[in-house]
Amino acid sequence: MTEAETPRATPPPLTGPRSRDTILREAARLATTEGIEGLSIARLAAAVGLSKSGLFAHFRSKEELQLATIETASAIFNEQVVKPATIAPTGQERLQQLLENFLRHVEDNVFPGGCFFASVAAEMDTHPGPVRDHAVQLTDEWLQQLVTAVQDAQAEGALDPSEDAGQLAFELDAYLLLANSQFVTGQESAPMERARRAIERRLTAASTAPEGRSQ
Amino acid sequence: MTEAETPRATPPPLTGPRSRDTILREAARLATTEGIEGLSIARLAAAVGLSKSGLFAHFRSKEELQLATIETASAIFNEQVVKPATIAPTGQERLQQLLENFLRHVEDNVFPGGCFFASVAAEMDTHPGPVRDHAVQLTDEWLQQLVTAVQDAQAEGALDPSEDAGQLAFELDAYLLLANSQFVTGQESAPMERARRAIERRLTAASTAPEGRSQ
Repeated sequence: MTEAETPRATPPPLTGPRSRDTILREAARLATTEGIEGLSIARLAAAVGLSKSGLFAHFRSKEELQLATIETASAIFNEQVVKPATIAPTGQERLQQLLENFLRHVEDNVFPGGCFFASVAAEMDTHPGPVRDHAVQLTDEWLQQLVTAVQDAQAEGALDPSEDAGQLAFELDAYLLLANSQFVTGQESAPMERARRAIERRLTAASTAPEGRSQ
Repeated sequence: MTEAETPRATPPPLTGPRSRDTILREAARLATTEGIEGLSIARLAAAVGLSKSGLFAHFRSKEELQLATIETASAIFNEQVVKPATIAPTGQERLQQLLENFLRHVEDNVFPGGCFFASVAAEMDTHPGPVRDHAVQLTDEWLQQLVTAVQDAQAEGALDPSEDAGQLAFELDAYLLLANSQFVTGQESAPMERARRAIERRLTAASTAPEGRSQ
């Protein structure tokens, strides 16, 4: 803060919460292509046009940068995927919106390497430590959101109560994960359409409505 | 070759096809935890107890090492997953064996980071070049094996001919990919059992047998 209050003899550096957010959004994008382990202070400094020492003013260590990046990616994900679904009037609709919003945020190339958490999970799964643990925790929370929406839909009578909610959420999430992987590799819409068909088919099969049971 | 023919004044270094295979198997294991981009000559040399120059005798460049590692991983995958399924008498049984062999090779921790190709695909999807292209090609070939097995099962009358073979293969492969991801992260059997239940359910639904149609 004292630095920001000194008279501006040179062009103002990126400081304050706004610039921190800008840096972290770039970091989250970089992490999906270079890996969160490849997210060095040096590389990020080059990407945002800051000196290494300038970036060290924001983050004292690579781990602090990595954890802050995960938090930012989580905030973006919540804003684009989770939050819009929370206003859905039923569990069934919330479930469908969570799944559709996920596919859209991949199609929209919010992160160039696709789903941030799929990317980080694949990279860090065998690297014990706080970075891996935080990414795994957020992945678990996402899956739990799907499970809860399934359970709500069951309680509302829209989905068959005999379905194992954890199993159904696993299958739905599986379609998302493969669609994400294939989309990032091929940049074609076919895997997204496959995932949408798979989701519709699976939810129809789990539905308590007559057209569901007959399929 | 001329080097190998010179008289042995010093203890024999790792040379010849056998040692090359040993090095590449270690490289494939390392690539699933450190990434194939993290597979430097220096790191691999340390892992196999060779000098950097000793390793350079085998591989002239990092890219040559990466491509040879992918070939070795592919050979291991074929040996453990694909080849045992080829003796299956029907398309349906071949399909089931391909899926089950995949899950077993993950459970057996053949590679510490799970499926080699899922790991490399997640890392390299946004990195154009021969390493990415080769990994993508092998992933496509795997998916095509599933599609062909589905089509054979349809031709034999075991699976409903109205099923889109590409769509069904996508859904089955999705269960494998999520199970792989969750297993590597948690080292628990639950995701494997979820994948097995999902596969059984999906193949029963696609079956032409009476018990299939009624589900």
